[in-house]
Amino acid sequence: MPSPALNTDEIAKLLHEVFPQAFYPGCDHSIERVDYGDVRVRWRFDPGSLRPGGTISGPTMMELADFAMYVAVFSAIGPQPLAVTTNLTINFLRKPAQADLVADAKLMKVGKRLAVGEVTIYSVGMAEPVAHVTATYSIPAQR
Amino acid sequence: MPSPALNTDEIAKLLHEVFPQAFYPGCDHSIERVDYGDVRVRWRFDPGSLRPGGTISGPTMMELADFAMYVAVFSAIGPQPLAVTTNLTINFLRKPAQADLVADAKLMKVGKRLAVGEVTIYSVGMAEPVAHVTATYSIPAQR
Amino acid sequence: MPSPALNTDEIAKLLHEVFPQAFYPGCDHSIERVDYGDVRVRWRFDPGSLRPGGTISGPTMMELADFAMYVAVFSAIGPQPLAVTTNLTINFLRKPAQADLVADAKLMKVGKRLAVGEVTIYSVGMAEPVAHVTATYSIPAQR
Amino acid sequence: MPSPALNTDEIAKLLHEVFPQAFYPGCDHSIERVDYGDVRVRWRFDPGSLRPGGTISGPTMMELADFAMYVAVFSAIGPQPLAVTTNLTINFLRKPAQADLVADAKLMKVGKRLAVGEVTIYSVGMAEPVAHVTATYSIPAQR
Repeated sequence: MPSPALNTDEIAKLLHEVFPQAFYPGCDHSIERVDYGDVRVRWRFDPGSLRPGGTISGPTMMELADFAMYVAVFSAIGPQPLAVTTNLTINFLRKPAQADLVADAKLMKVGKRLAVGEVTIYSVGMAEPVAHVTATYSIPAQR
Repeated sequence: MPSPALNTDEIAKLLHEVFPQAFYPGCDHSIERVDYGDVRVRWRFDPGSLRPGGTISGPTMMELADFAMYVAVFSAIGPQPLAVTTNLTINFLRKPAQADLVADAKLMKVGKRLAVGEVTIYSVGMAEPVAHVTATYSIPAQR
Repeated sequence: MPSPALNTDEIAKLLHEVFPQAFYPGCDHSIERVDYGDVRVRWRFDPGSLRPGGTISGPTMMELADFAMYVAVFSAIGPQPLAVTTNLTINFLRKPAQADLVADAKLMKVGKRLAVGEVTIYSVGMAEPVAHVTATYSIPAQR
Repeated sequence: MPSPALNTDEIAKLLHEVFPQAFYPGCDHSIERVDYGDVRVRWRFDPGSLRPGGTISGPTMMELADFAMYVAVFSAIGPQPLAVTTNLTINFLRKPAQADLVADAKLMKVGKRLAVGEVTIYSVGMAEPVAHVTATYSIPAQR
């Protein structure tokens, strides 16, 4: 496996530069591990994301998956902040606990134009995944 | 076409009761029209949702689609706050303008266990859609 | 709306050239109407596609949707037999009758690299759709 | 891990009973391994499935994924021939070789109403997967 194009600190720094309103020290999202095309990120539990029945909202999980994929794309192709999601499919599998979420993203393909990956989301303390995502990113043409 | 199980005001009231932290007078989401299984909702532009390149974040559109589907499910089957999304696929089609988004949701199937619908998202002022979603909701068994 | 890049006869001829083993006079698939990015195709009922419970097999409908999208892509961008599906999502909505299927494909985006469309499949004689598909095609770079 | 509800021979026998026209001794599809909710199936290469550019048709891979999921569902819940696919998403990752395909299906959820799984398809002789599928099956209510 090649080493990642950017490491954890470099990706965190880049995200903070390009998404200052969404990614900053102390925000809900953090990066736990970065290998080439294979990363783990975390969402810190926030009661504001609860929905009827005590579940965590679907959009919270979709946002986490999108974040995980974005970090995975950076880990494989380096700083490409204009890479954009073209397609995302999420399957909700189980009700998460009222706890942090951890998302493991793995790229299945890194092409010249498209990167495709899958993300498995876990609720900390539960063995079985709570959601599964596949997503495609479009990679801008090299200048 | 049957009349809707709940009208705009009834759905707004129900959402405010069950999602007080997410849906309240003055929040970013509103309901514009409710027919049976066929609704329009709106997201008010918020610069905090911008991403690199000046686009609106993907999760903002996923959240809007999920909201639209939720309202459409209520319009068809009445107050079922425990209906949950089981599956959602989004295709991002075009970069939205820095403007409000409007989402049209239409149910394609209302079964005893599952409701399936599609959502088309428009950027106000642009003719072509910016995103398209299909989603499935699981309907709790009747008690 | 622009006129189609290829008409019904031109697309049928092209398909027969590039897919001789799958598309030929008298085969199960035919093209009923071609407008720009908006086409209708048909599958002739074949009892060999029935499955337990008397339904038509899922893969029969996926193949029809893929065929419909392929024809729609040709109608918009002309002869590009190397356009390939990158992603397809199908929702099965109702059990079809033991009858022909008709599929309406509409492109939602025709970009330089990607075309995205949706397909609605009907069972002849039933008012409600039996399946809904969204799919993305990758368009080869122009030489 | 529990032992499978049906073993390879039992599933092959059941498929032959319920799908005599699609699954029979000598047909293109075979079952290679069955564990609980975790199976491997194979498609024998058939030049009739080739498409322009020398690739194997998308519907051939969708059919194989559907077959793999069906076997996985039987391995977990036993003989339920009326289980039906409600939703399937496929991502095509690479051009397969002109060789057999092998599909690994794993269930991520086995609920009372829905089973959700993923399928990874390999072209024999290639290390990287050629396609990835997620699918949901609806399980009939117990009588």
